[in-house]
Amino acid sequence: MYVPEPISKLIEGFMRLPGIGPKTAQRLSFFVLGMDEEDVLDLAKALVRAKRDLRTCSVCANITDQDPCYICSNPARDRSVICVVQDPRDLMAMERTREYNGLYHVLHGAISPMEGIGPDELKIPDLLRRLEDETVKELILATNPNIEGEATAMYLSKLVKPFGIKVTRIAHGLPVGGDIEFIDEVTLTKALEGRREL
Amino acid sequence: MYVPEPISKLIEGFMRLPGIGPKTAQRLSFFVLGMDEEDVLDLAKALVRAKRDLRTCSVCANITDQDPCYICSNPARDRSVICVVQDPRDLMAMERTREYNGLYHVLHGAISPMEGIGPDELKIPDLLRRLEDETVKELILATNPNIEGEATAMYLSKLVKPFGIKVTRIAHGLPVGGDIEFIDEVTLTKALEGRREL
Repeated sequence: MYVPEPISKLIEGFMRLPGIGPKTAQRLSFFVLGMDEEDVLDLAKALVRAKRDLRTCSVCANITDQDPCYICSNPARDRSVICVVQDPRDLMAMERTREYNGLYHVLHGAISPMEGIGPDELKIPDLLRRLEDETVKELILATNPNIEGEATAMYLSKLVKPFGIKVTRIAHGLPVGGDIEFIDEVTLTKALEGRREL
Repeated sequence: MYVPEPISKLIEGFMRLPGIGPKTAQRLSFFVLGMDEEDVLDLAKALVRAKRDLRTCSVCANITDQDPCYICSNPARDRSVICVVQDPRDLMAMERTREYNGLYHVLHGAISPMEGIGPDELKIPDLLRRLEDETVKELILATNPNIEGEATAMYLSKLVKPFGIKVTRIAHGLPVGGDIEFIDEVTLTKALEGRREL
């Protein structure tokens, strides 16, 4: 079947993105043909700029367009707490809570022997360097609640203990709006263990 | 929450596309950050080129990068049949069958009084001009099997009858792989009406 090259190229381009198969790519491509030229140019520019202008913060390894990043260079932030996350998206999720006012450290992954990711592939040496500075009093481990995330949290807690810094792990338990009937046993056990007096 | 501008611009850009909400836009944007710069540039270029280099064929109104389009200018195509479709995507679907070797005419929509789309908003005058040429012997109406598509087919068949051209409508019936138990009554009635001797 013949498809004009500009459209087949665009379909191919969209298909490189995650979760976009041939049908969605085709639908998006035809939608682009009907968009205002200005909006299409904006999207094209945004793609190039996002790739070119963003780098990782030299302090916390978050994705940023300035160095140090907006959070690390913000004097209103509490410098005595560092929250360790796996991914910049996790950092964004934490920020959305509007409850946390400390600093972050982005590992860019979790320890996973299966995928050949050891501590050296993560931003752990940078984290240790930050802890040498004595302003840090608490390290909150907010890695994912799965095998890799737990392993990373365990590893970090052992590594950081000698520094005499308080190390905490975010709580496991029932998600708000969840249903006890359908919750898995492991989570329910953790929720029981983590019960608090009212 | 603070998000670096290059990434928030990209998220906004993705959100203009159909079926892409804030979460998917965020996921796509972070994926782009991890892509090869070359691939990102390719996608950005494909967007701009698709918008700039494509136009509608002056004969059949299909989307094309050359005029007349690849199909209209192909001497191997049967010039005595024109298949009328609503949309360039419908044309692509027809081409995928590899069964049809005639020409096309793309209406770019269907008659819809609800949305204020009358015959004049579609490429119907262009179609009539093509029929004045006496090479056309059959007009196949392949508009969608819904209210607007049927109305458009009815309208066209009445309009074209005076030209003395054979007007046909693609068949209604059971989709291949479908299940009679779950098929709606209207389709089943049409399938019965359209039965053929074996």
